[in-house]
Amino acid sequence: MTGLQTSGNPHIGNIFGVILPTISYIKKYKKDLFFILIADLHSITNYKNYIILKNNIYKNAATWLSLNLNIKKNIYFYRQSDIKEINELFWYLNCFFPFNRLKLSHVIKNYKNKKKNYNTGIINYPILMASDILLYDIDKVIIGKDQIQHIEITRKIAQTFNKKVNKKVLNIPKYKIKYNYIIPGIDGEKMSKSKKNIIDIFEDKNILEKQIMNIKTTNKSIYSITYKKIKKTTLFKIYKIISKKEDYIYIKEKIKNNKIGFYTIKKMLYKNILYYYSKQRKIFFYLLNNKKIIKNILYEGYKKSQKIAKKKILFIKECLGLKI
Amino acid sequence: MTGLQTSGNPHIGNIFGVILPTISYIKKYKKDLFFILIADLHSITNYKNYIILKNNIYKNAATWLSLNLNIKKNIYFYRQSDIKEINELFWYLNCFFPFNRLKLSHVIKNYKNKKKNYNTGIINYPILMASDILLYDIDKVIIGKDQIQHIEITRKIAQTFNKKVNKKVLNIPKYKIKYNYIIPGIDGEKMSKSKKNIIDIFEDKNILEKQIMNIKTTNKSIYSITYKKIKKTTLFKIYKIISKKEDYIYIKEKIKNNKIGFYTIKKMLYKNILYYYSKQRKIFFYLLNNKKIIKNILYEGYKKSQKIAKKKILFIKECLGLKI
Repeated sequence: MTGLQTSGNPHIGNIFGVILPTISYIKKYKKDLFFILIADLHSITNYKNYIILKNNIYKNAATWLSLNLNIKKNIYFYRQSDIKEINELFWYLNCFFPFNRLKLSHVIKNYKNKKKNYNTGIINYPILMASDILLYDIDKVIIGKDQIQHIEITRKIAQTFNKKVNKKVLNIPKYKIKYNYIIPGIDGEKMSKSKKNIIDIFEDKNILEKQIMNIKTTNKSIYSITYKKIKKTTLFKIYKIISKKEDYIYIKEKIKNNKIGFYTIKKMLYKNILYYYSKQRKIFFYLLNNKKIIKNILYEGYKKSQKIAKKKILFIKECLGLKI
Repeated sequence: MTGLQTSGNPHIGNIFGVILPTISYIKKYKKDLFFILIADLHSITNYKNYIILKNNIYKNAATWLSLNLNIKKNIYFYRQSDIKEINELFWYLNCFFPFNRLKLSHVIKNYKNKKKNYNTGIINYPILMASDILLYDIDKVIIGKDQIQHIEITRKIAQTFNKKVNKKVLNIPKYKIKYNYIIPGIDGEKMSKSKKNIIDIFEDKNILEKQIMNIKTTNKSIYSITYKKIKKTTLFKIYKIISKKEDYIYIKEKIKNNKIGFYTIKKMLYKNILYYYSKQRKIFFYLLNNKKIIKNILYEGYKKSQKIAKKKILFIKECLGLKI
């Protein structure tokens, strides 16, 4: 299982950290079941308005599809908000996790440090995530490093639940970090929509160009610093992640011979993205102009996924004593 | 709307504080819609095991039915856990209530004062209650005094939600306290299952007798204290609430003439309960021996209530942008 919130187009952090590794994982393990979640419920914790949320759902789905997520029999591709059973399990899990422990999650610590107010959804976020996972007896969750704590909470909830109902009802999941370094944002910090430091390969060309031209380099001219230092710049790191090997070698040579400046590297990066992802961008914009296709795919995913969810929730309810 | 948790047989506090007033209210306002909730989801916050929870659901329903809740067209009598839409709305509401405020609820303060640990369901309890209410556009909630804060939280959530989605989606409910004094438990404290100080008119005769014989009186003999002081004893208060007027007058006379002791009053109270509630007790035990009847009634209630819930949740989802 893996999933992304619907907070706009998934940025290159999401794409290289989650989407592409998942898709290659799917190709490798042809017989496994995969659950790809569009986490629109989670995104309500940061609600703006209904038009934005709706569009972000389409954009999220279109990104997966244009990056070649092939919907086959073993792929469950669905929207979180379509599965009412996630919400049902969410409440049950509420009752099996000590609040004192939930308070310690690093998300909450972060809010506290900044003395920021937050809604109740923010603090209950990890329990909803636990519900996503435990409803489907997931073995492995593909996550970024920053999600490890959430999986630990999930495991703890499942253990407590099983102990309380005295039965192995919920499967204890493991996690898999497919991409073990964090992709820097254009300011060098972790890439994150909320920090406004993203690169979005599915954006309008002008905006994309702007994002790339704003990538942090150094205050000094490229010719006055060592290759070692250049390698440590945010621009170079991003270039390396996104570009193909031959482009990377080409640039390396040019830099070593003092034949290229930061501006040109940025321009090349921009052109490369448009070139590498031209087909994906076409599909992406086509899907957004033909939302009916996305809707149908998600509807199929809903029906398929709900079948499993329904069966599991009935069993859980029986174990709790709610089935009369 | 009103509702009781499934924490065993509703005790006389629940019966005189909620059930009987509601039933007389229903008789008075024949054309209004009434929603009577069996709050089994709330009771998971205090989960023991599946047999207890299941039995408590039946007992809760049987109490309402044996006290003459007449299921007509305008009565919605249903189990909370049957309505998945309550859980859906619960999550949405999570995202529209500041956590700082939820922390201040008196339930939580109580746990904090006692330095007791509690699960996340306990702190989120008021939001689930808000969901019960807001899903059905309830105008008035019939509550005990201790629930006023919960209705205030409900109102606040509805206001925040409406403001955020910029539409009058959720109805702002009022409350009605039908019984404005708190029924004492046998120890003089507020009657509550968790304090083990209840009188349960639907219990086995021997247990009921024991509960009544344990009602607190005074250390002194009844003959050595004034009538004014006797009136203030827990026994007298309970006697007054449960008994009919003629019994009350009879006892009053006897006390004033020093012709009756506490022991005899207790015995009389016990006999009165068995006599007044013999028909209700019969129905209660009959229903518990014929659970199929309860199941059918609750199934009908589920279908009727879910119809409204489904329509409302679809509208709410549309307003949030979750309907694609």
